[in-house]
Amino acid sequence: MLGIRMMRQMGELALIQRIRSGVAAELGSHTAARGVSVLLGIGDDCAILRPPKGDEILVTTDFTLEGRHFRREWHPPESVGHRALARGLSDLAAMGARPLAAFLSLALPAEMLATRAGRGWVERFFSGLRGLAQIHQVPLAGGDTSESPCGLVLADIVLVGSAPASRAIRRSGARAGDALYVTGNLGGAAAELAAMELRSSRVKSNFAGSIPANEVGAHPQLFPLPRVEVGLALLRRHLATAAIDLSDGLSTDLTHLCSESGVGAEVLSAALPIHPLALQARSDRALHFALNGGEDYELLFAASPKTKIPLSIAGVRITRIGSIVSRNVVSILDSAGHRKPLKPGGWEHFASGR
Amino acid sequence: MLGIRMMRQMGELALIQRIRSGVAAELGSHTAARGVSVLLGIGDDCAILRPPKGDEILVTTDFTLEGRHFRREWHPPESVGHRALARGLSDLAAMGARPLAAFLSLALPAEMLATRAGRGWVERFFSGLRGLAQIHQVPLAGGDTSESPCGLVLADIVLVGSAPASRAIRRSGARAGDALYVTGNLGGAAAELAAMELRSSRVKSNFAGSIPANEVGAHPQLFPLPRVEVGLALLRRHLATAAIDLSDGLSTDLTHLCSESGVGAEVLSAALPIHPLALQARSDRALHFALNGGEDYELLFAASPKTKIPLSIAGVRITRIGSIVSRNVVSILDSAGHRKPLKPGGWEHFASGR
Repeated sequence: MLGIRMMRQMGELALIQRIRSGVAAELGSHTAARGVSVLLGIGDDCAILRPPKGDEILVTTDFTLEGRHFRREWHPPESVGHRALARGLSDLAAMGARPLAAFLSLALPAEMLATRAGRGWVERFFSGLRGLAQIHQVPLAGGDTSESPCGLVLADIVLVGSAPASRAIRRSGARAGDALYVTGNLGGAAAELAAMELRSSRVKSNFAGSIPANEVGAHPQLFPLPRVEVGLALLRRHLATAAIDLSDGLSTDLTHLCSESGVGAEVLSAALPIHPLALQARSDRALHFALNGGEDYELLFAASPKTKIPLSIAGVRITRIGSIVSRNVVSILDSAGHRKPLKPGGWEHFASGR
Repeated sequence: MLGIRMMRQMGELALIQRIRSGVAAELGSHTAARGVSVLLGIGDDCAILRPPKGDEILVTTDFTLEGRHFRREWHPPESVGHRALARGLSDLAAMGARPLAAFLSLALPAEMLATRAGRGWVERFFSGLRGLAQIHQVPLAGGDTSESPCGLVLADIVLVGSAPASRAIRRSGARAGDALYVTGNLGGAAAELAAMELRSSRVKSNFAGSIPANEVGAHPQLFPLPRVEVGLALLRRHLATAAIDLSDGLSTDLTHLCSESGVGAEVLSAALPIHPLALQARSDRALHFALNGGEDYELLFAASPKTKIPLSIAGVRITRIGSIVSRNVVSILDSAGHRKPLKPGGWEHFASGR
C-alpha cells in the first residue's frame, strides 16, 4: 500500500548523498581531464556545459530497466552500468559526435539500499559505468535519484555530445550506389545472451570496474564497445554518407537507415563478419544472430563508391557487407546467389511476464 | 516470470510509433515557432540542437515515477504530463535559463497499451505535457520508449536550456546582508495533495490538454506553474545573487542554497506568502505546508540590498521573506519575535509500501 508521509529515513538519503559525492569526485577528475567543457556538475539545479565554439549539440536518452534490458540474475552489476552508458555513447558514435557529458537518473529498490550486498551492487554498477566513462573521458555531470516504486533497478542515461555545425552524420544521407559497411563483428551479443539463458545461472564476474585489456571484445553482450572513435573519424574524414548504430539488429537498423534515406539495400550473406561466439552455433542460427540479434553496438554506414574506406578505422576492422540500391527494398543474397527479402526482426529486449 | 523471446507484438510497437509520430508532429510546429534551435528531432540516433551563439548549455533530468511522484488514482493524466515537464522547466527557471528542448523517456505498462482506456490515459498524459510545452514554446525533441517492467508508468524528463556565458544564476552566490525573496505563494501544492489524500478518490479532471485561463494557479499540486519568465528576468536584469526552485520545500531548499553559498538565513514567519488553499487549514498546519510542503515550484532567490526588487516580475508577485546572514544557521522568527532553527523537513514524495 502506498501512503504519503514525511520521510525521515535518512539511511536512504544518506546513501543517495554518498552516490552523489562519489559521482561528484569522479566528475572533478574527468573535468580536469577534459578542460572546461563541464563548468558545473552535481549540486545545483542544472549542470552547465560549454560546447566547443560553433558546434551543434546532440542529445540522446536511453532507458536501462531491470527485466527489460537486463536481468540481475544474469548481468553482473558492472555490466549493467557499462551497458547503460554504452547505449548512449553508441547513439553519439552513430552521428560522429564527441561525448561532452553523461547524466544518469537512477531509481533503486529500498531493500537494495538497506543491505550491504545491495549497496555493493550499486557500487559495482557505478564501477562498470565509470570504467567505460574513463575510456571515453566522459564525465557523469548530473542526474536524478529516487527509491524505485517496484523493487526493480530503473535507469535512464542521457548523453550530450557535440559536432561541427551541419556535419553530424544522419541516417538519411545514403544514396543508390553507395557501399555498405559495418564495424567489428555481428551477432556476438545475442550469442552470449543465448549462452547466458542456457546456463540460466548468474555469470560470475571477475571484472573490477573496467574491462581488463585481454577481455576487450570477449563479452559482446556484457561489455559492448561503443564505436565512438570510429564515428569521430567517419565525420572528420568525410567517409560516410549515412550511419546508424546496431542496437536493434542489422535487419531492423538497416531498414531504418534505408527508410530515412528513401533507398533500399542488398546485403551479401557470405560477407557478414560473424562474431566467433555466434559461429559456435549452427550456421543458420549464427546467421540469425548476425542479422537479427541486437545490442552489438557496432556501426552500420554507407559510403560513396568514390570514397576509399580503409580496412580498419581507429583500430576497428571495417567490412563491406553490400550496397545501397535505388529500389525501395532491403534484400539479402545467400552464397548460392538466391535473393530473399530481409525483414526487420531485431530483438525487442526481454518480454515481461510479471 | 521473465523470459527472452523474439517479440512480434506489433500492437505495442505500433502504439509507440504512434506516440512518436504525434510527438514529431508537435515538434514540427514548435520548431517553426522557435526558429532553428532544434535542427533534428525524433527519428535519428540523437536530436541536434543549435544553441544561441556564445551561450552555455544547461541540462537537468527528473524522474516522474508512479507511486513515488504521483498516483494514478489521484492525479489525472494531464496533471502527470504537466508535472513531469514542470519539474524540468523549474530547474531551468532557477538558473535563469531559456528552455531549448525537452526529452522524455517513457515506460508504459503493456496492459495500458492493450486497452482503449489505457491508450486514452497516454493521450491525456501527452495532452497535459503539450499544454505546458506550448506555454513555454519548448519542443519535445526526442527520448526513449519502453514497456514498463512492473505495471507502473515510469517517466524521466530531460530539459536542455541555454544562458549567456557565465551568467546562469547559481545556488552559491548568496552573501550575508542579501535580502531573501520568493515568487508566488507557498504551501499550495502540499495543501491540495492533503485534500486529495483526504478525499482518497480520484480527482475528476475537466482539463482538456492545457490549463484553462481561469484555472491558472488554482491547482498548485496538479498544475504547478514553473517560473521560467521570472528566472529569465532575474538573469537578464541582474537581480539575483543566488536562486533555487522550491521542489522539496522552503526549509530544505533554503538549507541547500545556504549550504552552497556558505551562509545562513533568517526567515520571518509573518512575511511568508501562504497559498489560499493552505490557509484553509489550521494555522500551524498552514505554516507547515508553507515551510515543508514541497512541489510548489516557486523560486527562492537572494538579492543584494542595493538591488531594488519590484513587487512583481513577469506578472508574478514577489515577496521578501527574510535575509541572508553570515552565521551558518537557518532560523525562523515567529510573530512574537522568538527565533527557532529551521531544519530541512521537505516532503520526500510518496513512501513505497509495495
